[in-house]
Amino acid sequence: MNNNIEFQAIGTIYTPFKNKNGMPIQPPGAKGAKGKIELFPEFADGLKDIEGFSHIILLFLFNRSDGYKLQVKPFLEDNVHGVFAVRAPKRPNPIGLSIVKLDRREKNILFIDNPDILDNTPLLDIKPYIPDFDAYPDAVAGWQSKHSGKVLQHKSDKRFS
Amino acid sequence: MNNNIEFQAIGTIYTPFKNKNGMPIQPPGAKGAKGKIELFPEFADGLKDIEGFSHIILLFLFNRSDGYKLQVKPFLEDNVHGVFAVRAPKRPNPIGLSIVKLDRREKNILFIDNPDILDNTPLLDIKPYIPDFDAYPDAVAGWQSKHSGKVLQHKSDKRFS
Repeated sequence: MNNNIEFQAIGTIYTPFKNKNGMPIQPPGAKGAKGKIELFPEFADGLKDIEGFSHIILLFLFNRSDGYKLQVKPFLEDNVHGVFAVRAPKRPNPIGLSIVKLDRREKNILFIDNPDILDNTPLLDIKPYIPDFDAYPDAVAGWQSKHSGKVLQHKSDKRFS
Repeated sequence: MNNNIEFQAIGTIYTPFKNKNGMPIQPPGAKGAKGKIELFPEFADGLKDIEGFSHIILLFLFNRSDGYKLQVKPFLEDNVHGVFAVRAPKRPNPIGLSIVKLDRREKNILFIDNPDILDNTPLLDIKPYIPDFDAYPDAVAGWQSKHSGKVLQHKSDKRFS
């Protein structure tokens, strides 16, 4: 029953990060960076009223990640964790998820703040961030919780190249 | 350049919601419901240490959504909004996103609380929910903000059938 599921990019994400080396590993670490989403013009009408949201959820393709391992050593850690307990790009289905600040819209272009995303990344979906559904500030973050705050300084290295 | 992007299901989500009619439209509205994720056994090792997280992000296929419109009337609203400013299932790439509470794990099975997901839904990815990256309780939710809290009571109707 492992049928293929087919998607197509709906646009492209542009950021200052041309290489995996030195890029921020999450939006808090990308502070100050500016990015741009260019939705293919045929989808522009789908952006109506997105300007009202301060944050948007981006789903995109980790198109420079080849293959995956079921257990990995994430940044900040020397212990091995399951791929579904980490946010690393090498995954069975390499779908990336980032929550970014929406600065403004110009027709089919969205200007975003703090994208922790490589330049020229294929966009799969945009969803509005709704705190009622998406904000769980008291959620317990397993192995990650002892590193809380550290990703702000931490940059990527070669381990996912 | 619209090349196909191919994914495969990594498991199946089971919930009490057999039909679109009457199902909750977001996790807060599914309160009390129990669900189960059965990861295909070959991916079970990827779950190591997921038990430490109270919440997980599920990416799944809206496999009972055919086609899409770029502008839609969401639940709770009589106004039309762009598909990227709503969470409706009919989207150019029908990828669903839900943040659910993780109750416990038994090998390749995850028991989850409050799934706002149809029974027998193909799972694409699981990511750990990390408040440092994902919780923005003060985010501004555009047209949705005037309905804050209402989805707790609201159930689906036929508009996405």
